[in-house]
Amino acid sequence: MTADEVLAGVVAGEHRAIARAISMVEARGPEGRRVAAELHPRTGRAWRVGVTGAPGAGKSTLVGALLRPVRAGGWRVGVVAVDPTSPFTRGAVLGDRIRLGEHALDPGVFIRSMASRGRAGGLAEAASDAVLVLDAAAFDVVLVETVGAGQGEVEVRALAETVVLALMPGAGDGVQAMKAGLMEIPDVIAVTKADRPGADALAAELASALSLAPAGPWEPPVVRTRALQEGGADALWQAVRDHRRFLSEPGRLDARRREGLARELGALAVERLRLRVAGGSGAARLDELVDEVLARRIDPATAVDRLVARATEPG
Amino acid sequence: MTADEVLAGVVAGEHRAIARAISMVEARGPEGRRVAAELHPRTGRAWRVGVTGAPGAGKSTLVGALLRPVRAGGWRVGVVAVDPTSPFTRGAVLGDRIRLGEHALDPGVFIRSMASRGRAGGLAEAASDAVLVLDAAAFDVVLVETVGAGQGEVEVRALAETVVLALMPGAGDGVQAMKAGLMEIPDVIAVTKADRPGADALAAELASALSLAPAGPWEPPVVRTRALQEGGADALWQAVRDHRRFLSEPGRLDARRREGLARELGALAVERLRLRVAGGSGAARLDELVDEVLARRIDPATAVDRLVARATEPG
Repeated sequence: MTADEVLAGVVAGEHRAIARAISMVEARGPEGRRVAAELHPRTGRAWRVGVTGAPGAGKSTLVGALLRPVRAGGWRVGVVAVDPTSPFTRGAVLGDRIRLGEHALDPGVFIRSMASRGRAGGLAEAASDAVLVLDAAAFDVVLVETVGAGQGEVEVRALAETVVLALMPGAGDGVQAMKAGLMEIPDVIAVTKADRPGADALAAELASALSLAPAGPWEPPVVRTRALQEGGADALWQAVRDHRRFLSEPGRLDARRREGLARELGALAVERLRLRVAGGSGAARLDELVDEVLARRIDPATAVDRLVARATEPG
Repeated sequence: MTADEVLAGVVAGEHRAIARAISMVEARGPEGRRVAAELHPRTGRAWRVGVTGAPGAGKSTLVGALLRPVRAGGWRVGVVAVDPTSPFTRGAVLGDRIRLGEHALDPGVFIRSMASRGRAGGLAEAASDAVLVLDAAAFDVVLVETVGAGQGEVEVRALAETVVLALMPGAGDGVQAMKAGLMEIPDVIAVTKADRPGADALAAELASALSLAPAGPWEPPVVRTRALQEGGADALWQAVRDHRRFLSEPGRLDARRREGLARELGALAVERLRLRVAGGSGAARLDELVDEVLARRIDPATAVDRLVARATEPG
């Protein structure tokens, strides 16, 4: 497939072309740059919904369950699943088919999983690229699934207008982090596995954490979901739609997109700079500087000066 | 106090001089650079122990409880407490006195709290500086207390030879993150508030998470502690000493320090580069680029190119 064929196929919503476009853009060659640049003017129409939460919190189940009400509403939906721990680097396609279940043959559903490719650092840029392609391919909704903490984190608020946080009973850290102001308050909270003991305690903790947040015009709803219960997915989707309606007030969506894009660009620039510091010949350079500091020939601040100077050298 | 007086005072272990030296180094002026450079050759003797864990997991209580066995062993101990959410930006001294309790008048104990000063990004460098000064001031043990996740994270493994993770019953996220390989396995795990329900379940989860980790020569012990129970602190300190003994085998401490220093230098260099991207005039530049991308005049990758070019311009 030539780049032109890929571009035409993405615009026509063809799954093969979409998959190829994402791979081309991810490869970061001149062809991929061109594809991204030509698709970019077609973006900005998709409604991007992030689903975040710790490993094991039930994000994949939530995303899978959301497909039914989204499709029932007539929306085409793309899914970008970011999992830095996934063993499916090559086998992602098979994993995706299994996750799609009843939607595997539905042309209105497209899923792309991305695992860490050696470096966790590359995931944020790869996720951003995939969202761009799906937006340009005229999916009405793009669901971005990503762990909310730890190494290789993709800051979901940079990529989504609506952020859903999945928390399961017994998971205290997320609530504690919200309370302490270390985690931003999500737009919608899903208490997953709500039939397990501890769901009431979690809901009470959440209410207390949310009461500490500065009062704003939007109060994050807390929705309880259970794996095999369909009503939960409907209620969650309704809460997400309520947030979309909230954002439709003049100026709100614009402000949110500006904020997200500023974060996205800043994070991608820092990621590139980090690769300059630690990647390739930078790693050898870092090693030498470690030796110098351990031998007390230079102090850490001087070593950092040299690393920064090296990273900012032309070429 | 002149820089020379400060330097002499630090070497003599005088608390006022130590506090002043940390403030000078943190201020990042030429005087602070000189102080850090002159103190650096005196470092490398302290045993640096990190205490990490989510907000509310009981880190401060653990650190406070450790002071007794550490002092009973005759060691001088410095504490660096990093709390990005602390409201004590100016009032840290009072907070520290309260935390020190019975050790408030003990010249063998020094504590320094640091809160986020506007930018979470600055904390890693500030913590690194404070540890350098305490090491140079010949404290035998330096305890570094920091939250292990979320924004403003200070990567504790970069600053400490022994990492203690505090987990309380009901906190599932940390264990899940370990299981998923998103969090590095700590050297010692403290189950805090071990008298609460759920402590047995947490211990079982931990055993399962640890069994998934690649087998190494060191198996992280799990120690149960309770706030008012002294035996817990003694057992925890013993576990930390066991890890120190483990590191005393030829090559191990060196390897650990090399790895930590490489992380520290890399993180500090990235932090400086991030300030170039988003700080000062960089912020206005980022704003302009956001406008251009939203108007679809340039695509995100081109905007990132320009941010990186700007950050790497000389001067």
